Amino acid sequence: MISHFTQVRAQSLALCEPLKPEDYVVQPHPDVSPPKWHLGHVSWFFKNFILAEYVAGYEAFDERLNWFFNSYYESQGPRITRSSRGNMTRPELSVVLAYRKHVDTAIVELLESSHPDLQEIERLVELGCHHEQQHQELLLTDIKYILGTNPYYPAYLTSAGADAGAKGAVKKDATGSLNNKFESVKGGLHTIGYQGNGFCWDNELSVHQVFLEDFSIGRHLVTNGEYLAFMNDGGYDRFELWQMEGIEWARNLEVKAPLYWLQNETGEWMHYQLNGGLQPVDPELPVCHVSWYEADAFARWANARLPTEFEWEVACRKLDPEVTTRQNWSDAQKFQGYAPAANETQMLGTAWEWTNSAYLPYPRYPRPEGALGEYNGKFMINQMVLRGGSCATPQSHIRPTYRNFFQTDKRWQFTGIRLAK
Amino acid sequence: MISHFTQVRAQSLALCEPLKPEDYVVQPHPDVSPPKWHLGHVSWFFKNFILAEYVAGYEAFDERLNWFFNSYYESQGPRITRSSRGNMTRPELSVVLAYRKHVDTAIVELLESSHPDLQEIERLVELGCHHEQQHQELLLTDIKYILGTNPYYPAYLTSAGADAGAKGAVKKDATGSLNNKFESVKGGLHTIGYQGNGFCWDNELSVHQVFLEDFSIGRHLVTNGEYLAFMNDGGYDRFELWQMEGIEWARNLEVKAPLYWLQNETGEWMHYQLNGGLQPVDPELPVCHVSWYEADAFARWANARLPTEFEWEVACRKLDPEVTTRQNWSDAQKFQGYAPAANETQMLGTAWEWTNSAYLPYPRYPRPEGALGEYNGKFMINQMVLRGGSCATPQSHIRPTYRNFFQTDKRWQFTGIRLAK
Amino acid sequence: MISHFTQVRAQSLALCEPLKPEDYVVQPHPDVSPPKWHLGHVSWFFKNFILAEYVAGYEAFDERLNWFFNSYYESQGPRITRSSRGNMTRPELSVVLAYRKHVDTAIVELLESSHPDLQEIERLVELGCHHEQQHQELLLTDIKYILGTNPYYPAYLTSAGADAGAKGAVKKDATGSLNNKFESVKGGLHTIGYQGNGFCWDNELSVHQVFLEDFSIGRHLVTNGEYLAFMNDGGYDRFELWQMEGIEWARNLEVKAPLYWLQNETGEWMHYQLNGGLQPVDPELPVCHVSWYEADAFARWANARLPTEFEWEVACRKLDPEVTTRQNWSDAQKFQGYAPAANETQMLGTAWEWTNSAYLPYPRYPRPEGALGEYNGKFMINQMVLRGGSCATPQSHIRPTYRNFFQTDKRWQFTGIRLAK
Amino acid sequence: MISHFTQVRAQSLALCEPLKPEDYVVQPHPDVSPPKWHLGHVSWFFKNFILAEYVAGYEAFDERLNWFFNSYYESQGPRITRSSRGNMTRPELSVVLAYRKHVDTAIVELLESSHPDLQEIERLVELGCHHEQQHQELLLTDIKYILGTNPYYPAYLTSAGADAGAKGAVKKDATGSLNNKFESVKGGLHTIGYQGNGFCWDNELSVHQVFLEDFSIGRHLVTNGEYLAFMNDGGYDRFELWQMEGIEWARNLEVKAPLYWLQNETGEWMHYQLNGGLQPVDPELPVCHVSWYEADAFARWANARLPTEFEWEVACRKLDPEVTTRQNWSDAQKFQGYAPAANETQMLGTAWEWTNSAYLPYPRYPRPEGALGEYNGKFMINQMVLRGGSCATPQSHIRPTYRNFFQTDKRWQFTGIRLAK
Repeated sequence: MISHFTQVRAQSLALCEPLKPEDYVVQPHPDVSPPKWHLGHVSWFFKNFILAEYVAGYEAFDERLNWFFNSYYESQGPRITRSSRGNMTRPELSVVLAYRKHVDTAIVELLESSHPDLQEIERLVELGCHHEQQHQELLLTDIKYILGTNPYYPAYLTSAGADAGAKGAVKKDATGSLNNKFESVKGGLHTIGYQGNGFCWDNELSVHQVFLEDFSIGRHLVTNGEYLAFMNDGGYDRFELWQMEGIEWARNLEVKAPLYWLQNETGEWMHYQLNGGLQPVDPELPVCHVSWYEADAFARWANARLPTEFEWEVACRKLDPEVTTRQNWSDAQKFQGYAPAANETQMLGTAWEWTNSAYLPYPRYPRPEGALGEYNGKFMINQMVLRGGSCATPQSHIRPTYRNFFQTDKRWQFTGIRLAK
Repeated sequence: MISHFTQVRAQSLALCEPLKPEDYVVQPHPDVSPPKWHLGHVSWFFKNFILAEYVAGYEAFDERLNWFFNSYYESQGPRITRSSRGNMTRPELSVVLAYRKHVDTAIVELLESSHPDLQEIERLVELGCHHEQQHQELLLTDIKYILGTNPYYPAYLTSAGADAGAKGAVKKDATGSLNNKFESVKGGLHTIGYQGNGFCWDNELSVHQVFLEDFSIGRHLVTNGEYLAFMNDGGYDRFELWQMEGIEWARNLEVKAPLYWLQNETGEWMHYQLNGGLQPVDPELPVCHVSWYEADAFARWANARLPTEFEWEVACRKLDPEVTTRQNWSDAQKFQGYAPAANETQMLGTAWEWTNSAYLPYPRYPRPEGALGEYNGKFMINQMVLRGGSCATPQSHIRPTYRNFFQTDKRWQFTGIRLAK
Repeated sequence: MISHFTQVRAQSLALCEPLKPEDYVVQPHPDVSPPKWHLGHVSWFFKNFILAEYVAGYEAFDERLNWFFNSYYESQGPRITRSSRGNMTRPELSVVLAYRKHVDTAIVELLESSHPDLQEIERLVELGCHHEQQHQELLLTDIKYILGTNPYYPAYLTSAGADAGAKGAVKKDATGSLNNKFESVKGGLHTIGYQGNGFCWDNELSVHQVFLEDFSIGRHLVTNGEYLAFMNDGGYDRFELWQMEGIEWARNLEVKAPLYWLQNETGEWMHYQLNGGLQPVDPELPVCHVSWYEADAFARWANARLPTEFEWEVACRKLDPEVTTRQNWSDAQKFQGYAPAANETQMLGTAWEWTNSAYLPYPRYPRPEGALGEYNGKFMINQMVLRGGSCATPQSHIRPTYRNFFQTDKRWQFTGIRLAK
Repeated sequence: MISHFTQVRAQSLALCEPLKPEDYVVQPHPDVSPPKWHLGHVSWFFKNFILAEYVAGYEAFDERLNWFFNSYYESQGPRITRSSRGNMTRPELSVVLAYRKHVDTAIVELLESSHPDLQEIERLVELGCHHEQQHQELLLTDIKYILGTNPYYPAYLTSAGADAGAKGAVKKDATGSLNNKFESVKGGLHTIGYQGNGFCWDNELSVHQVFLEDFSIGRHLVTNGEYLAFMNDGGYDRFELWQMEGIEWARNLEVKAPLYWLQNETGEWMHYQLNGGLQPVDPELPVCHVSWYEADAFARWANARLPTEFEWEVACRKLDPEVTTRQNWSDAQKFQGYAPAANETQMLGTAWEWTNSAYLPYPRYPRPEGALGEYNGKFMINQMVLRGGSCATPQSHIRPTYRNFFQTDKRWQFTGIRLAK
């Protein structure tokens, strides 16, 4: 447990290594938090929910940090307005790093102790590690936004490869038709939800049955090339392909391509990549950074639809059976900008896949009491479920039952499209 | 068919009889349309989708009216911005009434003719009548907003009774406990969707199966008295009862009670009613004009939850078997401000009941091609399903499979709460 | 006095004669008030500042009307939010007309009485009449907005002539050059402010001296033709002609021509006129409905500038000496859409002329105590002075010292341009 | 000239010395620019208006910097949206500092050369130095905003003294009455505008005459103690003291005290000071960080008014004759948080003093052609003039004819109040 904790904590810092001091501070969009804030917030999580609860007479590093690093926990007192995170130059990075160390030392001490509640403490430390892994993904997506909207388009990494590549997975058939790439799945009653012994979130529990009709699902994520065909076919202007709310969103914000795409002087489509900065769009890689609105419109254009989260979960168990193996990937593995194509039909670790399921509680979902009840339970309206994890998700953190959720206009996560019929 | 058409058309005018000329014109909220606009728009619907299509050389009353009375049909050309409807003093009411007559005459002529497409025309006229009935409900809810936000609080009707009353239906047991008022329903595979021969909307079709767990459902709608208990218990301030989006909505708009409620100088809660204007809140009547956010928070306070739309549909077939009888209620019946309590556990015709189901397509839902594909299919995101129909819904227009849908913050419809467990 | 009062009151109603019932109710822009509101507000002014003060035991028509018809007087209690005036269908027009009669009767009775404060009462009635005359102009400008933004473009009048015509006044010289049309005025110390015995507003008093340098001033208002030349010369796109705030205003709102101008299918510029509805722009008439930003940019384009309000006042005394005669124009004269060209260089009664003077208090200006101190004194910031009165200003209401004032983006008044150098 | 240039350039860096790396980057308010941006922008000014114009084949440091560091010059091409300055982490501080050096070297080389246009170049370098001095003041006000809105309230300096102190200057008389502290000034014709041989801005030229009535002017700036008396007398709630626009501003933003003031738990008023951080409000020091709205309302409360800019200029020549001496203050003098009280009635160097004059052009003001015409000339609307310079103004940069200007709601500059009658 201690080594897991230490490894996860170290990984957050490792992810920040390529940053300049200035990159830690800003918030160019309300959804994006400064890297400095992420580093502080995940430490506050350990401090508030473990140290302050279980260490008698715990002496905090600085109680004023609660105000800065509480994200949205009403039960944990007043806190900074979300959109002001990027205005706070203090506590400066060096102070945040000292805070991290202070927390790390205390957690390790606690784990090494013979505290009567050690089992519960270990459960909470594991929870805190998974919480921090979520923020590791956010660190990458927020860094991508900070660098990718700067006209210098500075590269975060210079290793080979693209951000959300799973190039090997896309097998073209002779005809190039999308239709040949679907896999049939049998309907009937299926069991949904997490049934293992490892860690999972509360919103995956309440194992229950759903009845599905027969369906087929895309063997690969929609590629940049396919998405370009949609764009070139006037996709963004054809109202009959869109939800009304979606086309109004696109019109108001003048959206005409995925986030981070732009045309250079010669009309070529370029996109910003953490790996290598601005570069030509590779038509064989999965399309990424699209909103639910765009995913939904694309699916209609392709005479298909998005899968429900239940279809997705059932298909994943069938099509991507090597999942278990991949769970052994190292926690400490650095972001490499793409997930190795473990098998032909990889459903985990490339991009979060928009589903056509609203994020609502499973039957018998018990909104937990106390602060942790605020973690998943108070966001269960007006968001859509995403499944599968992305190239930015720590590999030990993903599983087929994992329910991610975002509003329909969000694009700064690594979000892609898988079709169903 | 002609008599049905004539009756429905007459009913729209009858609903406007109590209005002053000024009441026809304004739009005090973007969601609310001027009564004059409703009268024109429903006529435009017949004109554009039937007369212009099927009458050779049809001579329109005034082609410029298309711009005013197209609501949101992209396929039908440019149109007025929704929020500007209340700025248009012309065409004046007298012109709109002449337009109605012009359309009525032409439709009746067409129905009396031996047009080769008569069957399809009759199908479209029926569709148009149901469309107009939807706007009859909107007429009442919009009139309520126009009059109920005016400090004179003028009554629309002076008949006895309250707006959304179904007083007889609420049977108190000895203890007064909510828990005793639940009805158990057996789970398993259930069939969902419209299976009759009458009219229904496209979004009720695609009959399919869902698997439900056992559940219990409230025998009556939540009453004003129960809702007042929630308010008096600090319900609007207790974040743990709310979705985060919900409590932020309530805080930003300073919502502390249902729409149309206000406290008089002595602290007594009053509410505006179409029937009789401002009057004391009757604790035994169903609470009405609450948002999904409020319904959801109330349910959590009551240790319950909202039903899914599937649970609701299954329960309705069991608990309200007299539905069929009530389908014979006259089309021309005036709004009376309350639905007669047909049986003890009436699920239709009191208030639209918020469910915890997102408005998403049923399996195999085919978004229709052409203009009518814009009717239901382009609103299938970020809205929640309501079931049951309200006291303002024309009685021949409601059925157990009917899926209404609104955004989670909407309150100006007659929206109420039924609990489930 | 009684006859003057009666005449002014009748004139307000006469101005509304061409309206349809619907036209009385709406507020298509926050600056525009419903005609019904104007009719009520001016009556409330007499009621609150005279009847309630001087008639012992005065029985009001309906005290609830105070809330509706108080415009902005903090001292007179709570009142409707300005932008909600157009949502109020009640009190309906018939009630407002009854209210007017009730006030009229009481005022006439009071004027016929031997009240000990009769002199002060007469002073206040005169004030109330001038207040009502201001609202007569607003009635016309607001009606123009209501009708002129309706795609039917209904005419208000069908008499001959244009809205702000003073056609005879524009004498072209052989060269057509603007430069030849300037009149030189000698500088030095000049006396500013109202020195007569008649009525004037508090902001014209505090007669004082200003030192002016020699200047020259345009003999006529800038014409539509001259303004078209500015437009055709790229005037709206050339930032060096504009104040930064002005060009940002034009860009944000996509302003490319005066208000009420639009291009028909053949590219011809049309403009809406109260007289006759939509019609081609007449290049010889004064340009109207421009903001201060546009006036300022035009002046720079023409190598000139706007006059200060002091230069304007001095020039008016020199160039338009027939003013006194015109003061005898009948109060009851209907709006005719143009002011007769009394002399070649008419400075009064065509269009309000933007000056380059901020609306600030004259030296020793005493902000009056009490409610009437709110009339002019609380608007003395961030507005610019306009001089001269427009074709919509009642003729007995205008004089050379009159200081009108509006924010720099306002265009719905009859506002024009006179150049200076 | 070279030594002046070098000194001014060094002073900008000296002002940033107390900053942490994080403090350079953020923009907590659209009016506030990141210190890093200021350092880049002032260098860009020298580069674009001198080096690019006069050095043949000038090789820029990085042409992409034009986009980042152009503030508002339309003539200098596209540029970053103002409110996005705080999102740009690159170019990082080290790059900006290298850019500064690159520019410094080239300017010094040019000044040492025998360039045929050396005289014009020297004129422009002086202009650039004054431009940079303006940004030195902005650096201080922006740093104050960045640190003073951070809940740590970190001190910028720890020297003794308050920010805008001129403590010695406030001589209390026995009665403590404001009335005894006024100085009478004779009216008549006075000459306005800069008549010296040194540097001044274009908007101070056009020396001209104004006629003033006799007036009296406060010998000292309004103090915190006097302002507290206004607050305690309900000043923020008494509409009759305010311009309507002003009280609406205060209500909407819930303004109840000057910027940087807050009450501690015991109700004591504290304010943030660059010198020493949060500390109790000293009642004897000049009040600072008030908007024009507040200054105007305070003046009315005190039965006085704000002076016009002309009265101010005339009074300054009479009451503060040591100005010339102080012009010799060193350029390199560090910000000390207060200006030494040079004489009893010091009018320069404490706080910018709001006047009741709109910022409009003097007679014959020629808006310069080209880029420098954008410097002052395009802001001449809807701003008010401030006079006197503040404790943050470099001392060699201020003079009695200097016209500063801000919108009426701005408070983050060191803005104070001097009364007139």
